[in-house]
Amino acid sequence: MSIDAQRSGDDRLITEADVDEIALGAAVLGTGGGGDPHVGALIAKRLIRLHGPVRVIGVDELSPADFVVPIGGIGAPSVDVERIMAESELLAALEAIERATRRIPTAVMPIEVGGGNSMIPIAAAALSGLPIVDADAMGRAFPEAQMVTFHLAGYGPGTTVLVDHHGNEVVSRPVDGAWSERLARSVTVEMGGSATMIDYAYGGEVVQECAIPGTLTAAKRIGRILLGHGESAELRDDARIDALCDELDAVRLFDGKVTDLQRQFEGGFTRGAAELEGVGDDRGARFRLDFQNEMLLARRDGVLAAVTPDLIAVLDLATGAPITTESLRYGARVAVIGMPCHEKWRTPVGLDNAGPAHFGYDVEWAPVESLAARRKEAA
Amino acid sequence: MSIDAQRSGDDRLITEADVDEIALGAAVLGTGGGGDPHVGALIAKRLIRLHGPVRVIGVDELSPADFVVPIGGIGAPSVDVERIMAESELLAALEAIERATRRIPTAVMPIEVGGGNSMIPIAAAALSGLPIVDADAMGRAFPEAQMVTFHLAGYGPGTTVLVDHHGNEVVSRPVDGAWSERLARSVTVEMGGSATMIDYAYGGEVVQECAIPGTLTAAKRIGRILLGHGESAELRDDARIDALCDELDAVRLFDGKVTDLQRQFEGGFTRGAAELEGVGDDRGARFRLDFQNEMLLARRDGVLAAVTPDLIAVLDLATGAPITTESLRYGARVAVIGMPCHEKWRTPVGLDNAGPAHFGYDVEWAPVESLAARRKEAA
Repeated sequence: MSIDAQRSGDDRLITEADVDEIALGAAVLGTGGGGDPHVGALIAKRLIRLHGPVRVIGVDELSPADFVVPIGGIGAPSVDVERIMAESELLAALEAIERATRRIPTAVMPIEVGGGNSMIPIAAAALSGLPIVDADAMGRAFPEAQMVTFHLAGYGPGTTVLVDHHGNEVVSRPVDGAWSERLARSVTVEMGGSATMIDYAYGGEVVQECAIPGTLTAAKRIGRILLGHGESAELRDDARIDALCDELDAVRLFDGKVTDLQRQFEGGFTRGAAELEGVGDDRGARFRLDFQNEMLLARRDGVLAAVTPDLIAVLDLATGAPITTESLRYGARVAVIGMPCHEKWRTPVGLDNAGPAHFGYDVEWAPVESLAARRKEAA
Repeated sequence: MSIDAQRSGDDRLITEADVDEIALGAAVLGTGGGGDPHVGALIAKRLIRLHGPVRVIGVDELSPADFVVPIGGIGAPSVDVERIMAESELLAALEAIERATRRIPTAVMPIEVGGGNSMIPIAAAALSGLPIVDADAMGRAFPEAQMVTFHLAGYGPGTTVLVDHHGNEVVSRPVDGAWSERLARSVTVEMGGSATMIDYAYGGEVVQECAIPGTLTAAKRIGRILLGHGESAELRDDARIDALCDELDAVRLFDGKVTDLQRQFEGGFTRGAAELEGVGDDRGARFRLDFQNEMLLARRDGVLAAVTPDLIAVLDLATGAPITTESLRYGARVAVIGMPCHEKWRTPVGLDNAGPAHFGYDVEWAPVESLAARRKEAA
């Protein structure tokens, strides 16, 4: 699958036009959290305009001589939206990891493809001239720094860099992923709630073992369908959500209208729940979504429909545009879709780290596709 | 003045016996804060027993080729007392500063001579085999990381290291001393309230420009007098406090009994005030001490007697033993002495950073010796 096969004839480049598609797809994979990619997309496009397109490499092209640097933002998305990331932060972070590890980065990578953190590595790649690896360590968005496939495979965060727009630089060597999260979170709060972070920087062989390949390409495919670009141009607006489900092996869980919404900002997280009333084929049914930054739990008439680490995305019913947990509104008409997460999250260690129990939900995990099949049988 | 001229015949070594003298003097210079040196003294003595005495060098012996590493503890003293510092932390901190700066430390130094932070560099010197510089950057104890003479001279904290007993290591390059304090404080809280810190590590020429020379020797002289060692062996217990005042150009401000005590632990600081009723020659007079970790403000019958950055120490009236703000008790009979701070603190920039206004006291600073002369005239 190519990043830009249709347009540029070169599937190895991210151009300005590609950024909008990737950003929209990343918002879907953000499952309501991960921060709005909008500001990051503006920065990435400006830097591509100034410095030229970003070169994309596949995980299979990496060698042990490569040093791959995942770079992204940490902090409350509501702060990030207000703060235009200083470009100097990106270069400062890359310089800091090079100085602290004495290894020269050969590529950057998104740590999480979902949400705004898809854009920061594109901006960093444009600025530094480094290629970007078509992969990430979540295949979605998650709220905590240790919720990454490196951690599942037993790799620690390694040398961790935080830089802020004041010019402060903090390099940690935490003993494990949980300590990395604790230290980074407290430093970020002190830095004003938002910072640029590098962690899990590893040689090419570790990235090959751990990363989820092809996720930038997947984001781009999603964006193309929802924007009606390329082969999707034929699709009517309301057919795009079904086309998306086909493309992603996703399940269209519910069409409905938001009738109740509780949402609080607590402990750095946006927590809450939304109640939906069915429309169209789902008229008469009720649906409930629980979220903590990301959409984590979906129940139809009290019966489990999808649960983390599987992906639950809320899309505008008319336009297909993804809706974040922060922008969800009373009365909104939405489609909820459920997508299988990457198989690395479906292992016992994956479910321990990002399954329902980790987030305090007392439900047993089951694959979204099995839950859909079960419902079909019952109907 | 020698560190150990009387005993070892070698004024360039700190032996086990010297540690107790320095620790007691450091507690006086701690002016009620800075943490109890007791646990640190035990560790320093054990390491000297294992690895031999610590070599002392003077500030005048440093050259630009030297790389002097101030090392100490950061955190609430009440946590530090409970936690026996892991020796591995000291070596980890020295290794971290070497790796981050690519300069090999040639000497350690106390960042503050007052309280427990006098002992940590002695322990680090014994463990590493490095000499210790007979100097510090406060000449007393202060509660914030940027309250150092390097800061007064316009030097930033440089590369800053924090390590904890879990094995976590955090290396910062904060933009200034205030950011260093903020970042270090929040990381320390996350680390459990206490950590080993290196900051203001500089070449020998900067230490010569900025440090307050001879403060380890001063601590030792104070300790020797209060312990009745050497030439002080002749002194009766109750004459030692006067001998100390002679030695330090200090003023015996008040002898009294604690009749009221307010003390809270807030925001990581021990804050409060003590009221005293005069005894002996001071019978009939009243005295008030205000403290924030350290004793900061002393008033006799409502008239200013001494104020930060000058030193205010509270000693047991019978034994001369220094009393911390945490161990001050109702009914205690004490002598309060006031000592001139180093001249670097008496400059406009020094008073800005550590004068009464910085701590929220609405009094005008005046030298403790002028206040004493004024009182004498009035009497």
